[in-house]
Amino acid sequence: MQPAVPRVRLFLDHTLASGAAVPLDRDRTHYLKDVMRLGPGDTVAAFNGRDGEWLGRIEAMEKRRLGLRIERLLVPQPDTVDLWLLFAPLKRGPGDMTIAKAVELGASALQPVVTARTNTSRVKRERMRSLAMEAAEQCGRCDVPETREPVPLADLLRDWPAGRRLMFCDESGYGLPIVEFLTGVRDGGRTGPWAVLIGPEGGFTEEERALLRGRPFVHPVDLGPRLLRAETAAIAALVCWQAVVGDWRGGETAPSRATAGRA
Amino acid sequence: MQPAVPRVRLFLDHTLASGAAVPLDRDRTHYLKDVMRLGPGDTVAAFNGRDGEWLGRIEAMEKRRLGLRIERLLVPQPDTVDLWLLFAPLKRGPGDMTIAKAVELGASALQPVVTARTNTSRVKRERMRSLAMEAAEQCGRCDVPETREPVPLADLLRDWPAGRRLMFCDESGYGLPIVEFLTGVRDGGRTGPWAVLIGPEGGFTEEERALLRGRPFVHPVDLGPRLLRAETAAIAALVCWQAVVGDWRGGETAPSRATAGRA
Repeated sequence: MQPAVPRVRLFLDHTLASGAAVPLDRDRTHYLKDVMRLGPGDTVAAFNGRDGEWLGRIEAMEKRRLGLRIERLLVPQPDTVDLWLLFAPLKRGPGDMTIAKAVELGASALQPVVTARTNTSRVKRERMRSLAMEAAEQCGRCDVPETREPVPLADLLRDWPAGRRLMFCDESGYGLPIVEFLTGVRDGGRTGPWAVLIGPEGGFTEEERALLRGRPFVHPVDLGPRLLRAETAAIAALVCWQAVVGDWRGGETAPSRATAGRA
Repeated sequence: MQPAVPRVRLFLDHTLASGAAVPLDRDRTHYLKDVMRLGPGDTVAAFNGRDGEWLGRIEAMEKRRLGLRIERLLVPQPDTVDLWLLFAPLKRGPGDMTIAKAVELGASALQPVVTARTNTSRVKRERMRSLAMEAAEQCGRCDVPETREPVPLADLLRDWPAGRRLMFCDESGYGLPIVEFLTGVRDGGRTGPWAVLIGPEGGFTEEERALLRGRPFVHPVDLGPRLLRAETAAIAALVCWQAVVGDWRGGETAPSRATAGRA
Protein backbone atom coordinates (compact mmCIF):
# COMPACT_ATOMS: atom_id res chain seq x y z
CA MET A 1 0.00 0.00 0.00
CA GLN A 2 1.26 3.45 -0.91
CA PRO A 3 1.95 5.36 2.32
CA ALA A 4 0.11 8.67 2.74
CA VAL A 5 2.15 11.85 2.31
CA PRO A 6 3.76 12.47 5.72
CA ARG A 7 2.22 15.23 7.85
CA VAL A 8 5.61 16.46 9.00
CA ARG A 9 8.28 18.09 6.81
CA LEU A 10 11.77 18.77 8.12
CA PHE A 11 14.49 20.96 6.70
CA LEU A 12 17.77 19.12 7.33
CA ASP A 13 21.16 20.42 6.30
CA HIS A 14 22.39 16.96 5.34
CA THR A 15 22.78 15.05 2.10
CA LEU A 16 19.57 13.24 1.23
CA ALA A 17 19.74 10.11 -0.89
CA SER A 18 18.26 6.65 -0.83
CA GLY A 19 19.58 4.74 2.20
CA ALA A 20 21.23 7.75 3.88
CA ALA A 21 21.12 7.85 7.69
CA VAL A 22 20.44 11.31 9.08
CA PRO A 23 20.92 11.91 12.81
CA LEU A 24 18.52 14.43 14.40
CA ASP A 25 19.54 16.89 17.07
CA ARG A 26 17.88 17.25 20.43
CA ASP A 27 15.36 19.90 19.28
CA ARG A 28 14.22 17.84 16.30
CA THR A 29 14.01 14.69 18.42
CA HIS A 30 11.87 16.55 20.96
CA TYR A 31 9.66 17.99 18.22
CA LEU A 32 8.98 14.62 16.60
CA LYS A 33 8.55 12.69 19.85
CA ASP A 34 6.84 15.09 22.22
CA VAL A 35 5.07 17.55 19.92
CA MET A 36 4.09 15.42 16.92
CA ARG A 37 3.91 12.10 18.85
CA LEU A 38 5.94 10.24 16.26
CA GLY A 39 8.44 7.46 16.87
CA PRO A 40 10.47 4.70 15.19
CA GLY A 41 8.72 3.33 12.09
CA ASP A 42 6.77 6.53 11.38
CA THR A 43 7.57 8.54 8.28
CA VAL A 44 8.34 12.23 7.73
CA ALA A 45 9.34 14.25 4.68
CA ALA A 46 12.79 15.84 4.54
CA PHE A 47 14.41 18.45 2.29
CA ASN A 48 17.74 20.27 2.29
CA GLY A 49 17.35 22.92 -0.42
CA ARG A 50 19.28 20.86 -3.01
CA ASP A 51 18.17 17.26 -3.32
CA GLY A 52 14.36 17.53 -3.44
CA GLU A 53 11.89 16.20 -0.89
CA TRP A 54 12.46 12.68 0.44
CA LEU A 55 10.53 10.17 2.49
CA GLY A 56 12.39 9.32 5.69
CA ARG A 57 11.57 6.67 8.26
CA ILE A 58 12.22 7.41 11.92
CA GLU A 59 14.77 5.21 13.70
CA ALA A 60 15.93 5.16 17.29
CA MET A 61 19.56 6.22 17.76
CA GLU A 62 21.91 6.33 20.70
CA LYS A 63 21.50 8.82 23.60
CA ARG A 64 17.69 8.80 23.21
CA ARG A 65 17.98 10.69 19.94
CA LEU A 66 15.99 9.90 16.84
CA GLY A 67 17.30 9.72 13.30
CA LEU A 68 15.93 9.24 9.80
CA ARG A 69 16.63 6.51 7.27
CA ILE A 70 16.00 8.10 3.87
CA GLU A 71 13.88 5.87 1.64
CA ARG A 72 12.75 7.47 -1.61
CA LEU A 73 12.32 10.73 -3.49
CA LEU A 74 8.88 12.31 -3.13
CA VAL A 75 9.38 15.53 -5.13
CA PRO A 76 12.41 16.48 -7.26
CA GLN A 77 14.01 19.79 -6.30
CA PRO A 78 11.79 22.37 -8.01
CA ASP A 79 13.05 25.40 -9.91
CA THR A 80 12.66 28.53 -7.82
CA VAL A 81 12.34 32.19 -8.70
CA ASP A 82 15.20 34.60 -8.00
CA LEU A 83 13.40 37.26 -5.99
CA TRP A 84 14.94 39.06 -3.03
CA LEU A 85 12.82 40.84 -0.45
CA LEU A 86 14.52 43.99 0.87
CA PHE A 87 12.71 45.33 3.92
CA ALA A 88 13.34 47.80 6.72
CA PRO A 89 13.31 45.86 10.01
CA LEU A 90 9.95 46.11 11.79
CA LYS A 91 8.74 45.47 15.31
CA ARG A 92 8.54 41.86 16.34
CA GLY A 93 4.92 41.04 15.34
CA PRO A 94 4.88 42.58 11.85
CA GLY A 95 8.53 41.64 11.34
CA ASP A 96 7.89 37.96 12.04
CA MET A 97 4.84 38.10 9.79
CA THR A 98 6.85 39.62 6.95
CA ILE A 99 9.46 36.86 7.16
CA ALA A 100 6.95 33.99 7.35
CA LYS A 101 4.80 35.35 4.50
CA ALA A 102 7.81 36.10 2.29
CA VAL A 103 8.82 32.44 2.61
CA GLU A 104 5.28 31.25 1.75
CA LEU A 105 5.29 33.60 -1.22
CA GLY A 106 8.53 32.20 -2.58
CA ALA A 107 11.13 34.91 -1.90
CA SER A 108 14.66 33.55 -2.43
CA ALA A 109 16.49 35.87 -0.01
CA LEU A 110 15.53 38.11 2.91
CA GLN A 111 17.64 41.25 3.19
CA PRO A 112 17.02 43.71 6.05
CA VAL A 113 17.79 47.28 4.99
CA VAL A 114 18.65 50.12 7.36
CA THR A 115 16.92 53.38 6.36
CA ALA A 116 16.71 56.82 7.97
CA ARG A 117 13.38 55.99 9.62
CA THR A 118 14.06 52.37 10.47
CA ASN A 119 12.62 52.07 13.94
CA THR A 120 14.21 48.91 15.25
CA SER A 121 17.90 48.79 15.82
CA ARG A 122 18.68 45.10 15.59
CA VAL A 123 17.68 42.13 13.55
CA LYS A 124 18.24 38.80 15.21
CA ARG A 125 19.54 36.78 12.33
CA GLU A 126 19.23 33.46 14.17
CA ARG A 127 15.56 34.25 14.77
CA MET A 128 15.01 35.17 11.09
CA ARG A 129 16.62 31.90 10.07
CA SER A 130 14.48 29.83 12.38
CA LEU A 131 11.26 31.58 11.34
CA ALA A 132 12.19 31.07 7.68
CA MET A 133 12.89 27.34 8.24
CA GLU A 134 9.60 26.83 10.02
CA ALA A 135 7.64 28.64 7.30
CA ALA A 136 9.43 26.63 4.57
CA GLU A 137 8.58 23.35 6.32
CA GLN A 138 4.92 24.33 6.52
CA CYS A 139 4.34 25.72 3.04
CA GLY A 140 5.83 22.85 1.04
CA ARG A 141 8.96 24.63 -0.20
CA CYS A 142 12.02 22.47 -0.75
CA ASP A 143 14.44 25.24 0.21
CA VAL A 144 14.84 27.93 2.86
CA PRO A 145 15.48 31.48 1.64
CA GLU A 146 18.84 32.98 2.47
CA THR A 147 18.67 35.28 5.52
CA ARG A 148 21.15 38.16 5.45
CA GLU A 149 22.76 40.70 7.75
CA PRO A 150 21.21 44.19 7.68
CA VAL A 151 22.84 46.64 5.24
CA PRO A 152 22.37 50.44 5.00
CA LEU A 153 20.29 51.45 1.98
CA ALA A 154 23.06 53.56 0.43
CA ASP A 155 25.57 50.67 0.61
CA LEU A 156 23.08 48.27 -0.89
CA LEU A 157 22.48 50.57 -3.85
CA ARG A 158 26.18 51.27 -4.30
CA ASP A 159 27.08 47.57 -4.44
CA TRP A 160 24.03 46.53 -6.44
CA PRO A 161 24.64 43.42 -8.59
CA ALA A 162 24.59 43.96 -12.33
CA GLY A 163 21.50 42.62 -14.09
CA ARG A 164 19.20 42.50 -11.03
CA ARG A 165 16.19 44.79 -11.16
CA LEU A 166 14.64 46.42 -8.11
CA MET A 167 10.90 47.04 -7.79
CA PHE A 168 10.55 49.88 -5.32
CA CYS A 169 7.19 50.22 -3.54
CA ASP A 170 6.96 54.01 -3.52
CA GLU A 171 4.21 55.22 -1.21
CA SER A 172 4.44 58.76 -2.61
CA GLY A 173 2.20 57.77 -5.53
CA TYR A 174 4.64 58.43 -8.39
CA GLY A 175 5.11 54.82 -9.44
CA LEU A 176 3.22 52.91 -12.12
CA PRO A 177 0.29 50.79 -10.87
CA ILE A 178 2.04 47.55 -9.87
CA VAL A 179 0.21 45.17 -12.21
CA GLU A 180 0.62 47.52 -15.18
CA PHE A 181 4.35 47.63 -14.49
CA LEU A 182 4.68 43.87 -14.00
CA THR A 183 2.66 43.07 -17.11
CA GLY A 184 5.19 45.14 -19.06
CA VAL A 185 8.03 43.19 -17.45
CA ARG A 186 6.39 39.89 -18.34
CA ASP A 187 5.58 40.85 -21.91
CA GLY A 188 9.10 42.24 -22.32
CA GLY A 189 10.52 38.89 -21.19
CA ARG A 190 12.56 40.56 -18.42
CA THR A 191 11.94 37.93 -15.78
CA GLY A 192 15.56 37.46 -14.69
CA PRO A 193 16.78 38.25 -11.15
CA TRP A 194 14.61 40.73 -9.27
CA ALA A 195 14.26 42.33 -5.86
CA VAL A 196 11.38 44.06 -4.09
CA LEU A 197 12.00 46.96 -1.69
CA ILE A 198 9.60 47.98 1.09
CA GLY A 199 10.21 50.98 3.34
CA PRO A 200 9.80 51.32 7.10
CA GLU A 201 6.50 52.30 8.80
CA GLY A 202 7.52 55.96 8.61
CA GLY A 203 8.24 55.75 4.89
CA PHE A 204 11.38 56.72 3.00
CA THR A 205 12.80 60.24 3.32
CA GLU A 206 12.85 62.53 0.28
CA GLU A 207 16.61 62.01 0.07
CA GLU A 208 16.21 58.25 0.03
CA ARG A 209 13.54 58.51 -2.66
CA ALA A 210 15.85 60.67 -4.77
CA LEU A 211 18.70 58.19 -4.26
CA LEU A 212 16.44 55.35 -5.39
CA ARG A 213 14.91 57.15 -8.36
CA GLY A 214 18.36 58.09 -9.63
CA ARG A 215 19.38 54.46 -10.20
CA PRO A 216 18.70 52.88 -13.59
CA PHE A 217 17.82 49.50 -12.07
CA VAL A 218 15.13 50.93 -9.75
CA HIS A 219 11.46 50.78 -10.86
CA PRO A 220 8.97 52.62 -8.62
CA VAL A 221 5.50 51.07 -8.39
CA ASP A 222 2.27 52.09 -6.69
CA LEU A 223 0.17 49.93 -4.34
CA GLY A 224 -3.15 51.70 -4.52
CA PRO A 225 -4.98 54.49 -2.69
CA ARG A 226 -4.98 53.23 0.91
CA LEU A 227 -2.07 53.53 3.30
CA LEU A 228 -0.71 49.99 3.64
CA ARG A 229 1.25 48.87 6.63
CA ALA A 230 4.81 47.86 5.79
CA GLU A 231 4.13 44.14 6.19
CA THR A 232 1.00 44.36 4.01
CA ALA A 233 2.97 46.19 1.32
CA ALA A 234 5.66 43.48 1.39
CA ILE A 235 3.09 40.72 1.02
CA ALA A 236 1.21 42.62 -1.71
CA ALA A 237 4.34 43.26 -3.77
CA LEU A 238 5.47 39.62 -3.57
CA VAL A 239 1.95 38.39 -4.42
CA CYS A 240 1.74 40.62 -7.50
CA TRP A 241 5.22 39.64 -8.66
CA GLN A 242 4.50 35.90 -8.33
CA ALA A 243 1.03 36.21 -9.84
CA VAL A 244 2.12 38.22 -12.91
CA VAL A 245 5.70 37.14 -13.67
CA GLY A 246 6.50 34.38 -11.16
CA ASP A 247 5.47 30.82 -10.46
CA TRP A 248 1.73 31.49 -10.06
CA ARG A 249 1.37 32.12 -13.78
CA GLY A 250 0.64 28.51 -14.56
CA GLY A 251 1.66 26.84 -17.77
CA GLU A 252 4.35 24.69 -16.19
CA THR A 253 3.36 21.92 -13.82
CA ALA A 254 3.34 23.44 -10.38
CA PRO A 255 6.44 21.93 -8.79
CA SER A 256 5.42 21.35 -5.18
CA ARG A 257 1.73 20.74 -5.84
CA ALA A 258 2.25 17.17 -4.62
CA THR A 259 2.63 18.45 -1.08
CA ALA A 260 -0.50 20.62 -1.08
CA GLY A 261 -3.57 19.62 0.84
CA ARG A 262 -1.83 19.05 4.15
CA ALA A 263 -2.80 21.88 6.45
CA MET B 1 -1.09 78.78 7.89
CA GLN B 2 -2.58 75.54 6.60
CA PRO B 3 -2.73 73.06 9.48
CA ALA B 4 -0.89 69.79 8.92
CA VAL B 5 -3.04 66.74 8.22
CA PRO B 6 -4.06 65.40 11.66
CA ARG B 7 -2.23 62.34 12.91
CA VAL B 8 -5.37 60.82 14.37
CA ARG B 9 -8.40 59.62 12.41
CA LEU B 10 -11.63 58.63 14.13
CA PHE B 11 -14.57 56.70 12.79
CA LEU B 12 -17.68 58.32 14.33
CA ASP B 13 -21.21 57.18 13.66
CA HIS B 14 -22.54 60.73 13.63
CA THR B 15 -23.47 63.24 10.94
CA LEU B 16 -20.41 65.23 9.90
CA ALA B 17 -20.92 68.73 8.50
CA SER B 18 -19.37 72.14 9.00
CA GLY B 19 -20.13 73.39 12.53
CA ALA B 20 -21.51 70.07 13.83
CA ALA B 21 -20.75 69.24 17.48
CA VAL B 22 -19.89 65.57 18.02
CA PRO B 23 -19.72 64.23 21.58
CA LEU B 24 -17.14 61.51 22.19
CA ASP B 25 -17.72 58.52 24.45
CA ARG B 26 -15.49 57.53 27.32
CA ASP B 27 -13.27 55.23 25.26
CA ARG B 28 -12.62 57.85 22.60
CA THR B 29 -11.99 60.54 25.24
CA HIS B 30 -9.48 58.24 26.95
CA TYR B 31 -7.80 57.42 23.63
CA LEU B 32 -7.34 61.05 22.63
CA LYS B 33 -6.33 62.31 26.07
CA ASP B 34 -4.27 59.51 27.58
CA VAL B 35 -2.98 57.58 24.56
CA MET B 36 -2.49 60.29 21.93
CA ARG B 37 -1.91 63.17 24.41
CA LEU B 38 -4.34 65.48 22.64
CA GLY B 39 -6.66 68.04 24.21
CA PRO B 40 -8.90 71.03 23.50
CA GLY B 41 -7.69 73.02 20.47
CA ASP B 42 -5.94 70.06 18.83
CA THR B 43 -7.32 68.68 15.58
CA VAL B 44 -8.22 65.20 14.45
CA ALA B 45 -9.76 63.79 11.28
CA ALA B 46 -13.21 62.19 11.43
CA PHE B 47 -15.22 60.04 9.02
CA ASN B 48 -18.54 58.19 9.22
CA GLY B 49 -18.68 56.13 6.03
CA ARG B 50 -21.00 58.60 4.24
CA ASP B 51 -19.89 62.25 4.48
CA GLY B 52 -16.17 62.09 3.64
CA GLU B 53 -13.27 62.91 5.95
CA TRP B 54 -13.54 66.10 8.05
CA LEU B 55 -11.24 68.18 10.17
CA GLY B 56 -12.53 68.36 13.75
CA ARG B 57 -11.21 70.45 16.62
CA ILE B 58 -11.23 68.96 20.11
CA GLU B 59 -13.40 70.74 22.71
CA ALA B 60 -13.93 70.05 26.39
CA MET B 61 -17.44 68.86 27.25
CA GLU B 62 -19.24 68.07 30.47
CA LYS B 63 -18.38 65.09 32.69
CA ARG B 64 -14.71 65.27 31.66
CA ARG B 65 -15.58 64.06 28.18
CA LEU B 66 -14.14 65.49 25.00
CA GLY B 67 -16.06 66.38 21.86
CA LEU B 68 -15.28 67.54 18.33
CA ARG B 69 -16.36 70.71 16.56
CA ILE B 70 -16.36 69.83 12.86
CA GLU B 71 -14.63 72.51 10.77
CA ARG B 72 -14.11 71.61 7.12
CA LEU B 73 -14.06 68.80 4.61
CA LEU B 74 -10.63 67.24 4.05
CA VAL B 75 -11.52 64.46 1.57
CA PRO B 76 -14.86 63.90 -0.17
CA GLN B 77 -16.33 60.44 0.40
CA PRO B 78 -14.48 58.27 -2.15
CA ASP B 79 -16.10 55.64 -4.33
CA THR B 80 -15.40 52.19 -3.01
CA VAL B 81 -15.27 48.79 -4.64
CA ASP B 82 -18.01 46.24 -3.96
CA LEU B 83 -15.94 43.25 -2.86
CA TRP B 84 -16.98 40.88 -0.08
CA LEU B 85 -14.48 38.66 1.69
CA LEU B 86 -15.98 35.29 2.64
CA PHE B 87 -13.70 33.39 5.01
CA ALA B 88 -13.89 30.41 7.31
CA PRO B 89 -13.26 31.65 10.86
CA LEU B 90 -9.68 31.10 11.98
CA LYS B 91 -7.87 31.07 15.31
CA ARG B 92 -7.44 34.43 16.96
CA GLY B 93 -4.04 35.47 15.55
CA PRO B 94 -4.61 34.66 11.89
CA GLY B 95 -8.27 35.62 12.20
CA ASP B 96 -7.45 39.10 13.48
CA MET B 97 -4.83 39.48 10.76
CA THR B 98 -7.31 38.48 8.06
CA ILE B 99 -9.81 41.11 9.25
CA ALA B 100 -7.26 43.94 9.56
CA LYS B 101 -5.63 43.20 6.20
CA ALA B 102 -8.99 42.85 4.42
CA VAL B 103 -9.88 46.35 5.62
CA GLU B 104 -6.52 47.76 4.43
CA LEU B 105 -7.06 46.05 1.11
CA GLY B 106 -10.46 47.63 0.61
CA ALA B 107 -12.96 44.79 1.19
CA SER B 108 -16.50 46.16 1.54
CA ALA B 109 -17.94 43.37 3.74
CA LEU B 110 -16.51 40.62 5.93
CA GLN B 111 -18.60 37.46 5.95
CA PRO B 112 -17.56 34.48 8.11
CA VAL B 113 -18.56 31.17 6.51
CA VAL B 114 -19.04 27.90 8.37
CA THR B 115 -17.57 24.94 6.47
CA ALA B 116 -17.13 21.25 7.30
CA ARG B 117 -13.55 21.79 8.48
CA THR B 118 -14.02 25.18 10.15
CA ASN B 119 -12.00 24.81 13.32
CA THR B 120 -13.32 27.60 15.51
CA SER B 121 -16.87 27.52 16.69
CA ARG B 122 -17.61 31.18 17.32
CA VAL B 123 -16.91 34.52 15.76
CA LYS B 124 -17.11 37.46 18.11
CA ARG B 125 -18.86 40.00 15.96
CA GLU B 126 -18.18 42.88 18.34
CA ARG B 127 -14.49 42.07 18.14
CA MET B 128 -14.57 41.89 14.33
CA ARG B 129 -16.28 45.27 14.25
CA SER B 130 -13.75 46.90 16.53
CA LEU B 131 -10.77 45.43 14.62
CA ALA B 132 -12.31 46.65 11.36
CA MET B 133 -12.84 50.18 12.75
CA GLU B 134 -9.29 50.39 14.01
CA ALA B 135 -7.86 49.21 10.69
CA ALA B 136 -10.04 51.67 8.75
CA GLU B 137 -8.86 54.56 10.93
CA GLN B 138 -5.23 53.62 10.32
CA CYS B 139 -5.28 52.95 6.60
CA GLY B 140 -7.04 56.12 5.46
CA ARG B 141 -10.37 54.56 4.46
CA CYS B 142 -13.47 56.74 4.88
CA ASP B 143 -15.70 53.77 5.69
CA VAL B 144 -15.69 50.61 7.76
CA PRO B 145 -16.59 47.37 6.01
CA GLU B 146 -19.77 45.66 7.10
CA THR B 147 -19.12 42.82 9.54
CA ARG B 148 -21.63 39.96 9.32
CA GLU B 149 -22.86 36.98 11.31
CA PRO B 150 -21.40 33.60 10.29
CA VAL B 151 -23.48 31.66 7.73
CA PRO B 152 -23.12 28.00 6.68
CA LEU B 153 -21.60 27.65 3.20
CA ALA B 154 -24.63 25.83 1.76
CA ASP B 155 -27.02 28.59 2.95
CA LEU B 156 -24.80 31.27 1.54
CA LEU B 157 -24.74 29.62 -1.88
CA ARG B 158 -28.49 28.95 -1.83
CA ASP B 159 -29.35 32.60 -1.07
CA TRP B 160 -26.63 34.06 -3.32
CA PRO B 161 -27.56 37.53 -4.66
CA ALA B 162 -28.18 37.77 -8.40
CA GLY B 163 -25.40 39.50 -10.33
CA ARG B 164 -22.62 39.04 -7.76
CA ARG B 165 -19.71 36.85 -8.85
CA LEU B 166 -17.68 34.68 -6.51
CA MET B 167 -13.94 34.09 -6.96
CA PHE B 168 -13.22 30.81 -5.19
CA CYS B 169 -9.62 30.19 -4.11
CA ASP B 170 -9.46 26.48 -4.90
CA GLU B 171 -6.39 24.88 -3.38
CA SER B 172 -6.92 21.69 -5.38
CA GLY B 173 -5.20 23.27 -8.37
CA TYR B 174 -8.07 23.16 -10.88
CA GLY B 175 -8.67 26.91 -11.08
CA LEU B 176 -7.22 29.34 -13.61
CA PRO B 177 -4.08 31.22 -12.47
CA ILE B 178 -5.56 34.16 -10.56
CA VAL B 179 -4.12 36.99 -12.66
CA GLU B 180 -5.07 35.27 -15.91
CA PHE B 181 -8.64 34.95 -14.63
CA LEU B 182 -8.82 38.55 -13.35
CA THR B 183 -7.36 39.99 -16.56
CA GLY B 184 -10.22 38.32 -18.41
CA VAL B 185 -12.70 39.83 -15.97
CA ARG B 186 -11.18 43.28 -16.45
CA ASP B 187 -11.02 43.05 -20.22
CA GLY B 188 -14.58 41.72 -20.30
CA GLY B 189 -15.75 44.75 -18.30
CA ARG B 190 -17.29 42.52 -15.60
CA THR B 191 -16.19 44.60 -12.64
CA GLY B 192 -19.57 44.75 -10.89
CA PRO B 193 -20.18 43.26 -7.45
CA TRP B 194 -17.75 40.50 -6.49
CA ALA B 195 -16.86 38.25 -3.58
CA VAL B 196 -13.74 36.26 -2.71
CA LEU B 197 -13.99 32.92 -0.86
CA ILE B 198 -11.16 31.42 1.21
CA GLY B 199 -11.45 28.03 2.89
CA PRO B 200 -10.40 26.93 6.38
CA GLU B 201 -6.87 25.73 7.25
CA GLY B 202 -7.97 22.15 6.55
CA GLY B 203 -9.31 23.05 3.10
CA PHE B 204 -12.74 22.44 1.64
CA THR B 205 -14.14 18.90 1.47
CA GLU B 206 -14.74 17.25 -1.90
CA GLU B 207 -18.49 17.74 -1.35
CA GLU B 208 -18.03 21.44 -0.72
CA ARG B 209 -15.87 21.78 -3.82
CA ALA B 210 -18.52 20.03 -5.90
CA LEU B 211 -21.21 22.32 -4.43
CA LEU B 212 -19.13 25.37 -5.35
CA ARG B 213 -18.17 24.23 -8.82
CA GLY B 214 -21.79 23.49 -9.64
CA ARG B 215 -22.82 27.15 -9.31
CA PRO B 216 -22.71 29.38 -12.38
CA PHE B 217 -21.52 32.42 -10.39
CA VAL B 218 -18.51 30.58 -8.90
CA HIS B 219 -15.09 31.02 -10.56
CA PRO B 220 -12.28 28.81 -9.20
CA VAL B 221 -8.80 30.35 -9.24
CA ASP B 222 -5.34 29.07 -8.36
CA LEU B 223 -2.83 30.75 -6.03
CA GLY B 224 0.40 29.10 -7.10
CA PRO B 225 2.44 26.05 -6.19
CA ARG B 226 3.09 26.56 -2.48
CA LEU B 227 0.62 25.74 0.27
CA LEU B 228 -0.60 29.14 1.52
CA ARG B 229 -2.01 29.62 4.97
CA ALA B 230 -5.65 30.70 4.96
CA GLU B 231 -4.83 34.29 5.97
CA THR B 232 -2.14 34.55 3.29
CA ALA B 233 -4.56 33.25 0.67
CA ALA B 234 -7.16 35.84 1.73
CA ILE B 235 -4.63 38.67 1.48
CA ALA B 236 -3.29 37.38 -1.85
CA ALA B 237 -6.72 37.10 -3.44
CA LEU B 238 -7.74 40.61 -2.34
CA VAL B 239 -4.40 42.06 -3.51
CA CYS B 240 -4.74 40.49 -6.95
CA TRP B 241 -8.37 41.62 -7.29
CA GLN B 242 -7.54 45.22 -6.34
CA ALA B 243 -4.39 45.30 -8.46
CA VAL B 244 -6.02 43.91 -11.62
CA VAL B 245 -9.65 45.05 -11.54
CA GLY B 246 -9.97 47.26 -8.44
CA ASP B 247 -8.77 50.64 -7.24
CA TRP B 248 -5.02 49.95 -7.60
CA ARG B 249 -5.34 50.08 -11.39
CA GLY B 250 -4.71 53.80 -11.52
CA GLY B 251 -6.24 56.09 -14.09
CA GLU B 252 -8.60 57.75 -11.64
CA THR B 253 -7.13 60.02 -8.98
CA ALA B 254 -6.55 57.82 -5.98
CA PRO B 255 -9.32 58.92 -3.60
CA SER B 256 -7.65 58.77 -0.21
CA ARG B 257 -4.13 59.62 -1.35
CA ALA B 258 -4.39 62.84 0.70
CA THR B 259 -4.14 60.80 3.87
CA ALA B 260 -1.10 58.79 2.82
CA GLY B 261 2.29 59.45 4.33
CA ARG B 262 1.16 59.37 7.94
CA ALA B 263 2.46 56.22 9.48
